[in-house]
Amino acid sequence: MPLIQIDGPQLEIEKKRDLVKRITDVAMDVYKIEHITILIRENTAENVGVNGQLIADMHKEH
Amino acid sequence: MPLIQIDGPQLEIEKKRDLVKRITDVAMDVYKIEHITILIRENTAENVGVNGQLIADMHKEH
Amino acid sequence: MPLIQIDGPQLEIEKKRDLVKRITDVAMDVYKIEHITILIRENTAENVGVNGQLIADMHKEH
Amino acid sequence: MPLIQIDGPQLEIEKKRDLVKRITDVAMDVYKIEHITILIRENTAENVGVNGQLIADMHKEH
Amino acid sequence: MPLIQIDGPQLEIEKKRDLVKRITDVAMDVYKIEHITILIRENTAENVGVNGQLIADMHKEH
Amino acid sequence: MPLIQIDGPQLEIEKKRDLVKRITDVAMDVYKIEHITILIRENTAENVGVNGQLIADMHKEH
Repeated sequence: MPLIQIDGPQLEIEKKRDLVKRITDVAMDVYKIEHITILIRENTAENVGVNGQLIADMHKEH
Repeated sequence: MPLIQIDGPQLEIEKKRDLVKRITDVAMDVYKIEHITILIRENTAENVGVNGQLIADMHKEH
Repeated sequence: MPLIQIDGPQLEIEKKRDLVKRITDVAMDVYKIEHITILIRENTAENVGVNGQLIADMHKEH
Repeated sequence: MPLIQIDGPQLEIEKKRDLVKRITDVAMDVYKIEHITILIRENTAENVGVNGQLIADMHKEH
Repeated sequence: MPLIQIDGPQLEIEKKRDLVKRITDVAMDVYKIEHITILIRENTAENVGVNGQLIADMHKEH
Repeated sequence: MPLIQIDGPQLEIEKKRDLVKRITDVAMDVYKIEHITILIRENTAENVGVNGQLIADMHKEH
């Protein structure tokens, strides 16, 4: 602990590496605790709804 | 916020669309807040246990 | 399962009762599964950040 | 309820079966409640960061 | 990782101590991984709904 | 979305403000998405176990 769970869209490994490194730096600095675990959860656009609409359906409109 | 995370079995996109629309309607009505985010998590039958047994193993018995 | 976790602000018990009943009705109808569990998590305005700002700080501005 | 969510690496079905059975036994014994639901979430090594480094990158070093 | 999140009712500290020790033993044995983190979340009876009814309301009936 | 859930010990509001601002900056930069929601969950030392021991019990030893 602390434990950080991040839900977002799919991400390339370079971005995951960058995200984990930088989020960990911030969390260590704020919490003053050494052990930080981060879980990245990748969600498809048909598994996320915002204001009643699937993200998959929003993208179709554009 | 509010944020709603739904864990269930796999679902067709038409059902996801319906679920997100209707759950959002209820949440907006109860919370009186406009911004609702829903995450649908699809779980395989071998990743869910009920009362000590995997759902994958229950289905085999029927 | 299905399991539904709802994060929002504090809520009166009448609203929780209404939320649980109506969300369950929708989930049972979409999933065609009888057993639905809902967890309501109440978050204070200083524990939620939107776009970099605590909700507690937004409310001060209004 | 109780509900137990387990995040770990990928697991063979025999191990999932064992995990669900034994964790349920412990939870029923401690909580004295009959209905226990367990969700197993399998995470790839590039979706988990420990102390700022992806597990995928740690394994490369060894 | 592994990380285990347990949602249940309120629990005395002796039971938490017992739960954490025994769940960790099982998880270490199944995953063959040393580092196990457990988060216990205590939920009031008015924040949990089962099949459309708050647990707080079920208890009133008995 | 993205949604970031942070579990840690209790935190003063100044630290929460700092945490939310800086984590959001990183997430916006990596995901290139404007809308970031962060939930901070504060856990007492008796609700977190590491390697089979409650944090509350570790602190007693020191």
